[in-house]
Amino acid sequence: MNIVIVGLGVIGGSFGLALKEAGYPSVFGLDCCQDTLDKALAMGIILEGSCRGEDLLPRADLTILAIYPQDVKRFLLEHRNHFKPGSVITDVTGVKMPLVAALDHLLPEDVDFVPGHPMAGREKKGIDYASAKVFKGANYLLTPIPGNKEENIQKIADLAISLGFQRVRRITPADHDEMIAFTSQLPHALAVALINSDQPGRETGQFIGDSYRDLTRIANINGELWSELFLENRHALLAVIESFDQELEKIRQALLEEDQETLLACFKESSRRREALDAQ
Amino acid sequence: MNIVIVGLGVIGGSFGLALKEAGYPSVFGLDCCQDTLDKALAMGIILEGSCRGEDLLPRADLTILAIYPQDVKRFLLEHRNHFKPGSVITDVTGVKMPLVAALDHLLPEDVDFVPGHPMAGREKKGIDYASAKVFKGANYLLTPIPGNKEENIQKIADLAISLGFQRVRRITPADHDEMIAFTSQLPHALAVALINSDQPGRETGQFIGDSYRDLTRIANINGELWSELFLENRHALLAVIESFDQELEKIRQALLEEDQETLLACFKESSRRREALDAQ
Repeated sequence: MNIVIVGLGVIGGSFGLALKEAGYPSVFGLDCCQDTLDKALAMGIILEGSCRGEDLLPRADLTILAIYPQDVKRFLLEHRNHFKPGSVITDVTGVKMPLVAALDHLLPEDVDFVPGHPMAGREKKGIDYASAKVFKGANYLLTPIPGNKEENIQKIADLAISLGFQRVRRITPADHDEMIAFTSQLPHALAVALINSDQPGRETGQFIGDSYRDLTRIANINGELWSELFLENRHALLAVIESFDQELEKIRQALLEEDQETLLACFKESSRRREALDAQ
Repeated sequence: MNIVIVGLGVIGGSFGLALKEAGYPSVFGLDCCQDTLDKALAMGIILEGSCRGEDLLPRADLTILAIYPQDVKRFLLEHRNHFKPGSVITDVTGVKMPLVAALDHLLPEDVDFVPGHPMAGREKKGIDYASAKVFKGANYLLTPIPGNKEENIQKIADLAISLGFQRVRRITPADHDEMIAFTSQLPHALAVALINSDQPGRETGQFIGDSYRDLTRIANINGELWSELFLENRHALLAVIESFDQELEKIRQALLEEDQETLLACFKESSRRREALDAQ
């Protein structure tokens, strides 16, 4: 099976490393940056690289699009006629509805696009930060669409497991976007708001424990990517911000009213939920 | 130097383990639970244990109070006459103003209370979760009060470094409580509100990456302790919740108005701050 990775950034590069580790022999790379292609070749994660889709896509049995959400549509349109008939395409973008809604018009009928979302990443961008380790034990979401062949969905699922992902879960694109607004975009919004609410000029670093460190880790964020994700999924994200606000307001009110009972109830519930999460 | 640890829970027990590792020979333990004392003896972290203050406190050159904030005052009052003249007492509680304000009336003049706050802990409680490792590389805050002898402040600072803490920082009790509201209590409030805002019944664990895991770790919380800390420091905590709200509102407005520029500015600022934090 010939695999072409499109975009050898931190995620595409990690796919390359994980594919190499898992023993896939025929992996190729497409990237607009020659320097990145040279690095990927030197790292031994691709057999051959190119910046021109037509050089590699016609040979690809599987194309993995590891590019920005808004670039996916453009890429598909531009290379509509370069994909190998009968081949499978998947992507890694974190919001699914806007893409899925547009797919019908973008692809030839004999190419099967199985949308995917490997839930693993790093704060940094670029191939220098690629790592096969980030995939180990992580969740992989697939959001199949009408017309996907079962064998092709299964192909991506098997691939994910062979790369070290722990669980592959199928979900509708709409449910995906709703879940991801809560589990991924909301935490990023909170981390950003937390660190941005610090008073400038304080030596905050000398007064922190693990909690502040943990909660702000993802405040170091690829703005270009995440502003796209936030805006593409803004309705779902606004909804979970509102639910979050209600819970924080509960704590705020309890503080105002010196209501220890409510605080205890909040903490008991959160502890129960966190323990249940670990047990899943 | 005879050291008495009061309260052999997760923090007191960790002090015991760290003192043992650092080679302090004469460490004693005071706890109301015989089972805990037996465990501490079996772990080799105390030479002798008792549930009666008068048995050990008269011999203590240094008393480390590792009990709940509200128990500190009661303990000092109860054992006012048991402390060794010229000895030093320190504590580990996370809010300083209410305690410091009460100290004058609680202690005999020939005992020096140097308030401290080791910024390290675990979600779990009890001696079974004690670990010397949590102190390694962590911050230790001291909030000296008028009347503290410099040599005694330095004694606690030296002890902290010998136990593996990376930095000891002196700060006023008022500034401490303001900083800690932001770096410790606010993150806990956010973690609790985040996980409590999940819709019950969803298999959330299958749709999470590291970010949700990181941001909810501290939602598993010792409610008894943290409800005390929250209420004792509620004015400072309410203030930082308000600053946080303003930053989250900025993101919310940007989503409503599809304003990518503001999102990019928020993310750029948060990334800059997070990188600066790592560099500190």
